[in-house]
Amino acid sequence: MISWGDIYKVVVAMAPLYVALGLGYGSVRWWRIITPEQCEAINRLVSCITLPLFTFEFTIHVDPFAMNYRFIAADAISKVMIAVLLAAWPKCSSKGSYCWSVTSFSLSTLTNSLVVGVPLVSAMYGRWAQDLVVQLSVVQAIVWLTLLLFVFELRNAGCGLFSMAAVPSSAGGELASVESPPLKDVDDGGPEVTPRPSFWSLMKTVWLKLALNPNSYASIVGITWAFIANRWHFEMPSIMEGSVLIMSKAGTGMAMFSMGLFMALQEKLLACGPSLTAFGMVLKFIAGPAATAIGAIAVGLRGDVLHLAIIQAALPQSITSFIFAREYGLHADVLSTAVIFGMLVSLPVLVAYYVVLGFMS
Amino acid sequence: MISWGDIYKVVVAMAPLYVALGLGYGSVRWWRIITPEQCEAINRLVSCITLPLFTFEFTIHVDPFAMNYRFIAADAISKVMIAVLLAAWPKCSSKGSYCWSVTSFSLSTLTNSLVVGVPLVSAMYGRWAQDLVVQLSVVQAIVWLTLLLFVFELRNAGCGLFSMAAVPSSAGGELASVESPPLKDVDDGGPEVTPRPSFWSLMKTVWLKLALNPNSYASIVGITWAFIANRWHFEMPSIMEGSVLIMSKAGTGMAMFSMGLFMALQEKLLACGPSLTAFGMVLKFIAGPAATAIGAIAVGLRGDVLHLAIIQAALPQSITSFIFAREYGLHADVLSTAVIFGMLVSLPVLVAYYVVLGFMS
Repeated sequence: MISWGDIYKVVVAMAPLYVALGLGYGSVRWWRIITPEQCEAINRLVSCITLPLFTFEFTIHVDPFAMNYRFIAADAISKVMIAVLLAAWPKCSSKGSYCWSVTSFSLSTLTNSLVVGVPLVSAMYGRWAQDLVVQLSVVQAIVWLTLLLFVFELRNAGCGLFSMAAVPSSAGGELASVESPPLKDVDDGGPEVTPRPSFWSLMKTVWLKLALNPNSYASIVGITWAFIANRWHFEMPSIMEGSVLIMSKAGTGMAMFSMGLFMALQEKLLACGPSLTAFGMVLKFIAGPAATAIGAIAVGLRGDVLHLAIIQAALPQSITSFIFAREYGLHADVLSTAVIFGMLVSLPVLVAYYVVLGFMS
Repeated sequence: MISWGDIYKVVVAMAPLYVALGLGYGSVRWWRIITPEQCEAINRLVSCITLPLFTFEFTIHVDPFAMNYRFIAADAISKVMIAVLLAAWPKCSSKGSYCWSVTSFSLSTLTNSLVVGVPLVSAMYGRWAQDLVVQLSVVQAIVWLTLLLFVFELRNAGCGLFSMAAVPSSAGGELASVESPPLKDVDDGGPEVTPRPSFWSLMKTVWLKLALNPNSYASIVGITWAFIANRWHFEMPSIMEGSVLIMSKAGTGMAMFSMGLFMALQEKLLACGPSLTAFGMVLKFIAGPAATAIGAIAVGLRGDVLHLAIIQAALPQSITSFIFAREYGLHADVLSTAVIFGMLVSLPVLVAYYVVLGFMS
C-alpha cells in the first residue's frame, strides 16, 4: 500500500525538475533573458559538456560484476518482443512502414533514465532502485541507442526495406503529413538498383557517429573504467571525481532547463497534431510498460523489482532518441512532442502506476 | 603545523574549479563548441538564474541570531580602515584620485567568497569556516556592494570630488592610460556649477539598481527568510528547497565555466598591462589580508579564526565588483585582470598563506 506520504515524496522529488523546466521556458518566453538565437549555446553546453559528465559520473559507479542481470534480461526481452512485433507490422498491414516501426520502437522503449528516472525511482523505492535504473541506462546507451543508430544509417544508406516501405505508408491518413522526407542517398531508379550497403561499412559509420557523440563515449569510457576499477578494486582519486562532479552536479538542472528552452522555441505544444501525440503517448505509457511487465514476469521478477521494471518503462522519452530523429529527419516532430508532452504528463501517469502497483502487492 | 595531506586536501578542493574554468576557456578557444557571440547567453543564465539561486541557497542557511559578530566586526574595521586611507590618498598625493580610490577599495576588500571561498576554507578548516565565510559574503552583498554602488552613482551624478580629481591624476604615469572615461553627467562648466545631487535621489537610484540586480535581491530575500525562519523556528519545505537546489547545485561549476568563457574572450591575459596588474595583485593579496589581520587582532581574534580572517581576505576578486566597474566605465580592465589573473594565481598564494599561518600557530 502506498500512503499519501509516499506520493508526496515522489512529488517532492519531481517538482524541482519542473521548476528547472519552467525557468528555461520562462527565460525565453516571459522574461526574455535569453533570446531564441542564444538557446543553441546552452544546448551545446548541456549536450557536449554537462550531460556527458553527468552520464559518466553515474556510469563509473556501476559495478559490472554485481549488475542485476535478470532485471536487464527482462528489459531486453521486452525490447526484442517490441522490435519483432514492429518488424512484422509493415508486412501484415498496409498502414505500417519500416520508418514508423523505427519511430514506434523509440517511443515505446527508450527512456530518459538518468535525468528523470534517478530522482523518481529513488523517491519511490530507495537507493537500490536508482542503481538498477542506472544499470539499464548504461545498457540503453551502449546497446540500444547503438542499434537505433545502426538502423538509421541503414535507412540513410538506402536500404531496400525503408525505401520500399516509404510509398505505401503515405496512404496512412494523418501519418502522411509527417512522413519521412526524401531519403538523401536513395537512387531514383528504385530499391532494386540501390547497392546494398555492406554491414561493415555501415558499422564504421555508426562507430564514427558514436565516437562523435559525447554521451556515447561518456557511457563507453565510464563502463570501461567501472570494469577496471571493480576488477582491481581501486577508486577514482578524489581530485578527478571532484573535477567531474563540479559540472555533472549541474546535469539534472541544466538538462531540464535546456528542455524548457526547447519547449519555448516550439510554435505549438503538440508539434505533430493530437492523433499522433495520442499514438506516441499510448506507445510510451501503455505499450512499453506492458511489454516490460511481460518480460519481467517471464524472467520471474516479483514484488518491488517487478514494479520498478514497469515504472521505469513509463519514464518520459529519451532526449537522445529525439536528437537522432532530428539528425536523420525521421518523424522528429513526433519525437519532440513525446519528449515535451511526455515530460509534462509523466508525473501523474507515473504516480498512478506507483499507486496501482502498490495496491497489487 | 600544516601537513602535506592538508595541502593536498586544499588542492583537491580547488582543482575542480580550475577544471570548470578550463572547460569554459576550451569550449571557445580550443574545441569551438561555443562561439564568442553565444557566450552572452551562458553569462546571462549564470548571472540571472544560477548564481542568484546559489547565493540564495547559502544565505537562507545563515542563522542571523548566531552570527560571529566579532568576526564580522574585524572585517568591517579593516574595510573602514582601507576606505579612510584611500579617501585621504587624493588629498595627500598628486598621484591619487577618487576614481582610483574606489577601484583600490574594490581590489583590496571585495572577494569571491561563495564560489571560491566556500570550497577552499572548508577544505582548510572545516564546516565552521565555511559558515563564517558565508556570513561575510552576506554582509558584503548587502552592505559593501550597496555602498560601492552608491559611490558609483555619486560619481555618475557628477559629484564634485570625482570631477575635480580626474584632472591631476592623469599625470600619474601609466595609470593615465587607463584613466576613467569622461563622466557622462558632469557639467562642462566645472564642479562649482554641477548641482549637488541630493542624498535621497541618489539612494533611490541605488535601490533601483539593486532591485534589478538578481544577486542583490537573492541576498536580501535570503537573509529576510533566514531571520523569519530562525526567529519562529521553521524550515523551508523540502519541495521548495529542492527546487532551489536543482539550479543552485550548478552554481560553482557554471560560475567558473562562465569565467572561463570570459577569459577566452579577452585578447590578452593582462588587459591592463603588467604594472597595473602588479598593483592590483599587491592590493588583493597583501594589502587586503594585512588590513584584515590588523582588524582581526584589534577585536581579539586568535588561532584558526584569525587565520581564516586573513585567508578569506586574500580570496580572488569579487566578480560583481568587476560587473559594476564595467557598467560604470571605471577601470573595468583593471578589475577584469584582477578577476582572471587573481583566480589563476590564487591557489599558490592561498596555500602559501595557509602554510605560513599554520607555522605561526
